[in-house]
Amino acid sequence: MIKVGIVGYGNLGKGVEIAVNAAEDMELLGIFTRRQPEQLDTKSPAYQIEDILDFKDKIDVLILCGGSQSDIPVQAPRLAENFNTVDAYDNHDKIPEYFDQMDQLAKENSHVSVIATGWDPGLFSLNRLLAETILPQGQTYTFWGRGVSQGHSDAVRRVDGVKAAIQYTVPNQAMLEAAKAGDPIDYQQATAHSREVYAVLEEGADPDQVAEAIKTMPDYFAPYDQVDVHFISQEELDQNHQGIPHGGEVVRQGQTSPDHHAVYNFALQLGSNPEFTGAVNTCYARAAYRLAKEEQFGAKTVFDIAPAYLSAKTGAQLRHDLL
Amino acid sequence: MIKVGIVGYGNLGKGVEIAVNAAEDMELLGIFTRRQPEQLDTKSPAYQIEDILDFKDKIDVLILCGGSQSDIPVQAPRLAENFNTVDAYDNHDKIPEYFDQMDQLAKENSHVSVIATGWDPGLFSLNRLLAETILPQGQTYTFWGRGVSQGHSDAVRRVDGVKAAIQYTVPNQAMLEAAKAGDPIDYQQATAHSREVYAVLEEGADPDQVAEAIKTMPDYFAPYDQVDVHFISQEELDQNHQGIPHGGEVVRQGQTSPDHHAVYNFALQLGSNPEFTGAVNTCYARAAYRLAKEEQFGAKTVFDIAPAYLSAKTGAQLRHDLL
Repeated sequence: MIKVGIVGYGNLGKGVEIAVNAAEDMELLGIFTRRQPEQLDTKSPAYQIEDILDFKDKIDVLILCGGSQSDIPVQAPRLAENFNTVDAYDNHDKIPEYFDQMDQLAKENSHVSVIATGWDPGLFSLNRLLAETILPQGQTYTFWGRGVSQGHSDAVRRVDGVKAAIQYTVPNQAMLEAAKAGDPIDYQQATAHSREVYAVLEEGADPDQVAEAIKTMPDYFAPYDQVDVHFISQEELDQNHQGIPHGGEVVRQGQTSPDHHAVYNFALQLGSNPEFTGAVNTCYARAAYRLAKEEQFGAKTVFDIAPAYLSAKTGAQLRHDLL
Repeated sequence: MIKVGIVGYGNLGKGVEIAVNAAEDMELLGIFTRRQPEQLDTKSPAYQIEDILDFKDKIDVLILCGGSQSDIPVQAPRLAENFNTVDAYDNHDKIPEYFDQMDQLAKENSHVSVIATGWDPGLFSLNRLLAETILPQGQTYTFWGRGVSQGHSDAVRRVDGVKAAIQYTVPNQAMLEAAKAGDPIDYQQATAHSREVYAVLEEGADPDQVAEAIKTMPDYFAPYDQVDVHFISQEELDQNHQGIPHGGEVVRQGQTSPDHHAVYNFALQLGSNPEFTGAVNTCYARAAYRLAKEEQFGAKTVFDIAPAYLSAKTGAQLRHDLL
């Protein structure tokens, strides 16, 4: 049995908990939290994060479920000294330097650290690599959604006059269909996606003013041609917008020769983004465990791990069942 | 430069030739053929297959482009003694024993043999593995087409009264769309695909008799509810049916928890099946070369090879550009 620990018990931590409990070759040894362990709504054993070093020799892999903004950059390097780790670090711009830092630490301490797993970065990255490598002549497009963007939802919540809010990222369906049909598309940030906001106003707030503040917000909303802001009641938000769905598609339009096109397409539709991300990260925890057994120490990404490492099946089973 | 040889110059060999010539890190040392080399319609150096051992120390990887029925089972074991090899062996039932045979030979002779690459087996297998591993609760469906099946085309050509023919495998589009929408489907061999035949009759042949012989052919056509046989002229066949398109989709409908579904989908639309298969196999030749340099000898499948090995880019470039 692979002995797993979970660090952080937000949505992602709960998703990982479900996946680890469902895995027949894994045992969840504990959830580590900054909160009071007895306050977590879980049947799994829970401990204070301060006590994690007591588990140094008991846990095979730690799955880090904190945020990429302030948790992972602080926790992961410290934990990589004592544990094999898996994380869903998703700050694309900073991945190269984060990889180098974790690679050095993991190697110095004879551990494996799988970084930036999940679906983007993660499975989408893997497909961008395969598509580009197999079809060097071509163009890759990534579409996200329809799904909840936590970053954009948080940004709306910070607007004066907004009491609660959720933001959906919506792909331009016509453009996406054209891309998959192999037709030429003009993929631009302004038009490839639209943004759909459902917000509850503070009492007395001016809806026009709030909508304007959202639509003109730099980086988050200003660059998009279409931003739809809907004001709804708290009741409606609670009733219709509690899920965290997401998904998207990677499309590469390529040419295998001047005469022949090829369209490569990978798509996910996820009822729960954190549950799926948790499921992916749990598979990469299995890989981290095996790589560590083989003393293939260091930082790894989805690019560096052979697919068979993710599965509990043997090579012979995989060849028989799935090849 | 990775020095590549191609064994066999049919459609697949021509596809590999295009991909190797387009790869900046590869050099095509020669095409090896059973025909007279000077008769091949190519600008690449061509040699008789009998002379291939002269290239033992010059070629890094051989890409085997013969048929799975009678060429690969004979050629591959012999060649694996002297070369690293890549093949597109696609006899799914016999892959396990073929793997074991090649694994032993490759290890004994310190070579790498990548077997059963392409898109099915190959990329489709890879996606079946990822989908099943990440979503253990669920059901995977593979749809093929619309595309040319060489096996079925050959079977039609063997029917008395048929002068020439081509067969298209056609997925049940409504079933496929339902699968991708996450709706329950009843995937049965009889209904998941239909078969579309375009045949040219021999002079004097009875169309009703020929159509009946095709539709009732065991294994190839009898199991399918819908088989459409169209009789056309040789001119029409030559004009409208010379391409070798193919493709298909892998769909997994899964649950990340009792409350949340996830749909995983991988799709290819290929203007030229052999060109795309050749492109995939060329990437796996790059991987075979690198694995051999690292002395990771033995037989490998798409399950055993980390994606980064396929790309000419460095790990740092991949993390920067694609993660």
